Amino acid sequence: MTPSLQLDPQGRLRHLLTTEGLPRPLLERLLDRAEPYARASEAGFKKDPLLTGKTVVNLFFENSTRTRTTFELAAARLSADVVNLHVQASSTAKGETLLDTLKTIEAMQVDLFVIRHEASGAAHFFAERAAPGVAILNAGDGRHAHPTQALLDSFTIRRHKKSFAGLSVAIVGDIVHSRVARSNIHALTTLGVTDLRLVGPTTLMPAGIDQLAPGLSIEHDLMRGLDGVDVVILLRLQKERMVGAFLPSLGEFHRDYGLTAARLARLKPDVLLMHPGPINRGVEISGDIAYGERSVILEQVQHGVAVRMAVMAEILGGSQ
Amino acid sequence: MTPSLQLDPQGRLRHLLTTEGLPRPLLERLLDRAEPYARASEAGFKKDPLLTGKTVVNLFFENSTRTRTTFELAAARLSADVVNLHVQASSTAKGETLLDTLKTIEAMQVDLFVIRHEASGAAHFFAERAAPGVAILNAGDGRHAHPTQALLDSFTIRRHKKSFAGLSVAIVGDIVHSRVARSNIHALTTLGVTDLRLVGPTTLMPAGIDQLAPGLSIEHDLMRGLDGVDVVILLRLQKERMVGAFLPSLGEFHRDYGLTAARLARLKPDVLLMHPGPINRGVEISGDIAYGERSVILEQVQHGVAVRMAVMAEILGGSQ
Amino acid sequence: MTPSLQLDPQGRLRHLLTTEGLPRPLLERLLDRAEPYARASEAGFKKDPLLTGKTVVNLFFENSTRTRTTFELAAARLSADVVNLHVQASSTAKGETLLDTLKTIEAMQVDLFVIRHEASGAAHFFAERAAPGVAILNAGDGRHAHPTQALLDSFTIRRHKKSFAGLSVAIVGDIVHSRVARSNIHALTTLGVTDLRLVGPTTLMPAGIDQLAPGLSIEHDLMRGLDGVDVVILLRLQKERMVGAFLPSLGEFHRDYGLTAARLARLKPDVLLMHPGPINRGVEISGDIAYGERSVILEQVQHGVAVRMAVMAEILGGSQ
Repeated sequence: MTPSLQLDPQGRLRHLLTTEGLPRPLLERLLDRAEPYARASEAGFKKDPLLTGKTVVNLFFENSTRTRTTFELAAARLSADVVNLHVQASSTAKGETLLDTLKTIEAMQVDLFVIRHEASGAAHFFAERAAPGVAILNAGDGRHAHPTQALLDSFTIRRHKKSFAGLSVAIVGDIVHSRVARSNIHALTTLGVTDLRLVGPTTLMPAGIDQLAPGLSIEHDLMRGLDGVDVVILLRLQKERMVGAFLPSLGEFHRDYGLTAARLARLKPDVLLMHPGPINRGVEISGDIAYGERSVILEQVQHGVAVRMAVMAEILGGSQ
Repeated sequence: MTPSLQLDPQGRLRHLLTTEGLPRPLLERLLDRAEPYARASEAGFKKDPLLTGKTVVNLFFENSTRTRTTFELAAARLSADVVNLHVQASSTAKGETLLDTLKTIEAMQVDLFVIRHEASGAAHFFAERAAPGVAILNAGDGRHAHPTQALLDSFTIRRHKKSFAGLSVAIVGDIVHSRVARSNIHALTTLGVTDLRLVGPTTLMPAGIDQLAPGLSIEHDLMRGLDGVDVVILLRLQKERMVGAFLPSLGEFHRDYGLTAARLARLKPDVLLMHPGPINRGVEISGDIAYGERSVILEQVQHGVAVRMAVMAEILGGSQ
Repeated sequence: MTPSLQLDPQGRLRHLLTTEGLPRPLLERLLDRAEPYARASEAGFKKDPLLTGKTVVNLFFENSTRTRTTFELAAARLSADVVNLHVQASSTAKGETLLDTLKTIEAMQVDLFVIRHEASGAAHFFAERAAPGVAILNAGDGRHAHPTQALLDSFTIRRHKKSFAGLSVAIVGDIVHSRVARSNIHALTTLGVTDLRLVGPTTLMPAGIDQLAPGLSIEHDLMRGLDGVDVVILLRLQKERMVGAFLPSLGEFHRDYGLTAARLARLKPDVLLMHPGPINRGVEISGDIAYGERSVILEQVQHGVAVRMAVMAEILGGSQ
């Protein structure tokens, strides 16, 4: 949607706001750049001096300890100075005030803001107004985008399946509210997935979502949607907001769309089971398979740090 | 007021509690020392190993994300270890308990405390009781003092106007509650400002304030107060506490004392427009000029980090 | 109780959960290892590059600013990256969810968790489930154990008394709720204390506690319990939980068990007065002697950082 905002005239990544519109070579370059970080970390070498003297600010308008921690660790392992700011929504009611906050912190010569906000478009809003040389990294804005989650999902899939060509992938659950689903749709289809299925009840499926990219299809029956897939990406259900408005009950959702050991047994033996976390046991997934043999959920978390290091290195660290 | 507490027998800065009584050469030395930090930072070199192994604790009894962040970044860029402690007022009701908190954290071999407290005199209280070698840096105590704010204001003025000699400066608004006003009065008159005007309604003007230093005058009419000035320092109005007790209404305050584009147009063309932030749009200042051509509000924020680095370096880093 | 969980087959420390069952040479080795950290810190050299690139997470389910800060400083002075996570009990109602939290953060390639939790056994629960190479350091679990507090108490005693042989030590106050008491009982008797007295009212003395280790005795009369002792360890009274259920009143507790200047004057002239903090003035201790000549309460805090550095270095830093 906004490649010119994300990319500079030479095509280099300036901000990371969405996976939509990012060229395939850039996505592949980010995944390639994450690989040595993942490997070094597995070997026990986690520190890189690349961003010494740079300042990264985690500006979170929405609370998320785990996501904030992965960004904090990514920046710290690149030797940047990191500051965490949790801003209460109440103190930033108006766009003008929001912008004052950004401009004020920016004036402290911050190099990169990691921003999470409950409003779709917040990261774009900031990126359009950031000073030259100040980067915005979207850590989730409303229902819109969560690009590093999509990158870490792509990274995890590539590590296991080597290539995206010929893969069948299903994204299951609450599509309508999910920035993870949207970002994965753009990333995976750009990277070469040609069979990407969106599986969920009608009430959680936005109209026309299958027009977002080529290769998309919609399924309302879980097992038909999972038939022959190589990868299952379960989405987190926002339980509190769901019942009544969108779902008769959580039990009914689990009955119709929850992944269980019995259902998993009917899938391909090498299927990958993914979830952005935190999981709702007994809703999207039964507790017994959450960290079972087919699950790569904890690998996703691990790769999240490597991928975020790669994105920060790409934006702030110059060419490799 | 307490030069002997702030200075050691050789005249070196031991604590920074107030700008009152600090000798002009010391103030100038701090501004001089901030200059290379500001320049290096603008050039992209933000890290100095000077305070490696030193421990700085931000001990904030009053919430202030932006001020705390500038101190945190200043310490981190000097390579100190920084710990943020936000202490709820409720858990420290009595002075004895307050002191236990200080002594306990001090015992962890802290080198410098940055303290913000709602009680005037809190920083002095701590400095009188700190162990030898432990420094107190006042980040704002009640209505009393906010010395680093005054230093960054002076630094910003000097960068633009080169010298303080012959300058006319106006401080506008809520003088009575303002530690920023008091610290600026002492710093600016010591640095050589001989025409310093305090502008505001009678209800917000403490009796006898013009006796604090030579060169002070009081004005109740905004445009007479601003006539021919080189610098306008607007103060933040504590909106919640104002209406009723001190002011008929915010609208009336803005009508009488708010800076607007029309009023700004009648001032000197090279006037500097300053504000300690965060601004109240439509109260002290109209939104359209807050970050306009004459505003140096964001520069103040930027200089705040450099000035705080200079103060920490001066206190903890030995002679230059 | 669980030496095999704490020690690897070669007898090296893998987790620190409790002082119970730890062999005397290991306890002495940890105290020996803390000594250079304490001395270097007193001499102004606080930084050691030993744990560069390691990641320490303070995972606190119970709020404790001072304990968290000593662990944070210990890790930072060893050059580790440190992340503070304060997890609300409400979001982790069930063990499964607790474990999800641990596993998720662990997947970010954390090397050591410092865990504080209100449930006895929480640290063991995590240690049994941690991935290979991930260490658990218990910073207090319910009434069960607080091993680094016992180590810093032992360290402080050894620094003053040189040896544990022949010492008489009294632990005074709320024994029944105290993890500090339990950890000190195991550490001090293992290190060679043969006269360890537990002093307090019947309602705060668990039945059979004197069977925990050899050399223990129970006293209900304060001055008989303190007769001829070399060390007094006062425990903190959890005031809010006490009155009614366990004590008639705080005043009565102070009358019967509070240490006052008059009582202190009747003890050995070189007695050490200790308290894990924060103190309740006028309850366990009168304010006038809290930081008096015999008190080593602030030394305990100081040694707490050195001892925690020693434990982290021992677990993560390989052999010395």
